Amino acid sequence: MAEPLRIALAGLGTVGAGLVRLFETNGALIESRAGRPVRIVAVSARDRSKDRGVDLSPYVWEDDMTALAEREDVDVVVELVGGADGPALTTARNALRAGKALVTANKAMIAHHGMELAELAESQGIALKFEAAVAGGIPVIKGLREGAAANRIERIYGILNGTCNYILSTMEQTGRDFGEVLAEAQALGYAEADPTFDVEGIDAAHKLAILAAIAFGARIDFPAVDIGGIGRVRAADIAQAEALGYRIRLLGIADCDEGEGLFQRVQPCLVPHGHPLAAVDGPTNAVVAEGNFSGRLLFQGAGAGDGPTASAVAADIIDIARGDIGAPFSVPAAALAVRAPADAGHRTSRTYLRFTVTDRPGVLAEITAAMRDAQVSIESLIQHGRPEEGGEVLVAMVAHEGPEARIAEALRLLEGSPSLTEPPLIMRLL
Amino acid sequence: MAEPLRIALAGLGTVGAGLVRLFETNGALIESRAGRPVRIVAVSARDRSKDRGVDLSPYVWEDDMTALAEREDVDVVVELVGGADGPALTTARNALRAGKALVTANKAMIAHHGMELAELAESQGIALKFEAAVAGGIPVIKGLREGAAANRIERIYGILNGTCNYILSTMEQTGRDFGEVLAEAQALGYAEADPTFDVEGIDAAHKLAILAAIAFGARIDFPAVDIGGIGRVRAADIAQAEALGYRIRLLGIADCDEGEGLFQRVQPCLVPHGHPLAAVDGPTNAVVAEGNFSGRLLFQGAGAGDGPTASAVAADIIDIARGDIGAPFSVPAAALAVRAPADAGHRTSRTYLRFTVTDRPGVLAEITAAMRDAQVSIESLIQHGRPEEGGEVLVAMVAHEGPEARIAEALRLLEGSPSLTEPPLIMRLL
Repeated sequence: MAEPLRIALAGLGTVGAGLVRLFETNGALIESRAGRPVRIVAVSARDRSKDRGVDLSPYVWEDDMTALAEREDVDVVVELVGGADGPALTTARNALRAGKALVTANKAMIAHHGMELAELAESQGIALKFEAAVAGGIPVIKGLREGAAANRIERIYGILNGTCNYILSTMEQTGRDFGEVLAEAQALGYAEADPTFDVEGIDAAHKLAILAAIAFGARIDFPAVDIGGIGRVRAADIAQAEALGYRIRLLGIADCDEGEGLFQRVQPCLVPHGHPLAAVDGPTNAVVAEGNFSGRLLFQGAGAGDGPTASAVAADIIDIARGDIGAPFSVPAAALAVRAPADAGHRTSRTYLRFTVTDRPGVLAEITAAMRDAQVSIESLIQHGRPEEGGEVLVAMVAHEGPEARIAEALRLLEGSPSLTEPPLIMRLL
Repeated sequence: MAEPLRIALAGLGTVGAGLVRLFETNGALIESRAGRPVRIVAVSARDRSKDRGVDLSPYVWEDDMTALAEREDVDVVVELVGGADGPALTTARNALRAGKALVTANKAMIAHHGMELAELAESQGIALKFEAAVAGGIPVIKGLREGAAANRIERIYGILNGTCNYILSTMEQTGRDFGEVLAEAQALGYAEADPTFDVEGIDAAHKLAILAAIAFGARIDFPAVDIGGIGRVRAADIAQAEALGYRIRLLGIADCDEGEGLFQRVQPCLVPHGHPLAAVDGPTNAVVAEGNFSGRLLFQGAGAGDGPTASAVAADIIDIARGDIGAPFSVPAAALAVRAPADAGHRTSRTYLRFTVTDRPGVLAEITAAMRDAQVSIESLIQHGRPEEGGEVLVAMVAHEGPEARIAEALRLLEGSPSLTEPPLIMRLL
């Protein structure tokens, strides 16, 4: 039997404790599949005294996280601290500089510093792996790097945030409104006390930027992601979508064309009932990759949670134990192309538009005139007869397939209109 | 840039020609992801003169397939001939004995000779890969070997045969009967002229036996798979299942318990509407793996076709180019456990039973008495009032959760009854 692979674990939150439990439970099985013993040797976290439900006595405790990278008895540092910068980034850099492989579940850090860390890992000839950073327990990064490796990926899209999907599918099932369901999700632990990163689409955007880099062989460009959240989706929108044969899901969508550039967007979308993503309920994640030979591949599973995330972290560790030190982004970082952000204006889509308007004559005429002047062709229009709270009325419509620039122009024409009580909500049909 | 990886291709049917086209189309991309050039150097098939829609002039032609393994300018032999034995097996053995890595899409050969070939590959220290043998373009073997590597797999199940799924979902959508839809599937190329392997469940059983070996670390035991096909499913069964909130899908299901042994079954099952497999239509495949940490992982995509299958073959080739020569079944063949077939008798399930009976008094009393005597508790019973062609009547029922042995006992009590016009059809509820 070969030499053991020795792990240092930085961060003992839910996922860190889950990883300790995973090695306790499945240790023998991991050893047989990795072909060598794999052992946690040292751990570090902020608070040594906290009860995490796992026995930490077999491992060396380091008060100073950065000391893990300097230990001679460590081959791999696992970073589960979180946060784009701060101790997580310091730990990651120190580990790679010291020639230790790095495994991380930190999507924010990879989305912001993935290129730097990949270059560092490659210059050292060591592994940098982050399967757990995207879609929790679902092996979608391996699916792209290996399973779909022979394909030009034409588009990648999916449900990348379990909190948002839980909220949207619960709103759908109960008819309740966003705020109420969010509060319930917080009480159940499906949403953070500060839900901003999740509900505003930032977390999904981190993951999308990472997937896009691997799928299209492009340098990560997180700042270019066009990000929208779900906070403005109302129960009425969900009911309206349902009547049209659609469900609302927060999707990350990316495609890349040498001429057009790299398109990356996170936005609530209308997904037709027959599509596999429409059936994805609760905190589940699902990613679709469309390859030019494979056709449509779907990967689905738990997008978060201690067990699934620890499973993905441990899969990376097993890869390293087996000797896989392949390029973190499938091709060497230096070979990743710089892709300009695509101009969304001439993309075409069918579009759902929902206006909240004051209940007085002429409002509909004003809206439809703006549509006409911007050459937006209306496929169906629904005015909710009954005023909502505060006397406002919802007007929803679906525009025929057409360039996004025309929708933007129509919205520009309506900007500042006293008839609108809030900015219109725009969602594309998948 | 490292040395090129040189490929010999045995078999130029749909998938073989698809692989040539894939390398023509995506060659540069494959080279960048593999980290080295990957080139087809030699090909062989039965008929040199046949037009396959691809230019074969760049490659050496060998009339004798077995000569491919002896070529000094070949590193990997790709076997796409098909068939459990014969030229495919000879080619595979020759290649491995000559120290060439082997990639194959041949599920029958792996199901029957996978252990021998894995031992041969391992003794030579070379790769044997067969991602394309299971579920076409879906990287489910990589998903198990790598993505879910840290998990004890508790159950694996899925839709493993596209022809059967096309037939069942078309019957469902059109209300037409099996024979008619099969004939249409044959005309469309979704079913073979001789559909036996597909519709009788043998093809799905080959794939299930391979998946089970990898998932449970057990030696392949294809003869132990309990195999049923879809030929006896009627439009009336599909309508009945639909009324109960279920869809009928041919599923391969396997689980393994050290005490109980290895359970492997291919059988049409009733899948509840909310389950992701119920939404899988047409020739699509989908596999669910339940890991003790990952939870439920779903892999879905095209189960057959030249493009998807070639995509899976090429993914294996890229793995080899990257230096992955890991154990074909995730752990070394010698470490795979011998698992006795599980006795299904004390497994419990809810069961759908459909009887075709002569339209005369007392038949229902006879059937329900047999159920009572075997201690099978009936949850719901539907007697179709209107006699089918030939004057027979269908009686369908769902039995409460209970041991399968009781169902078998009830059927034994009814065996030979002149009231039954054919043996009862039994399907489990997932």
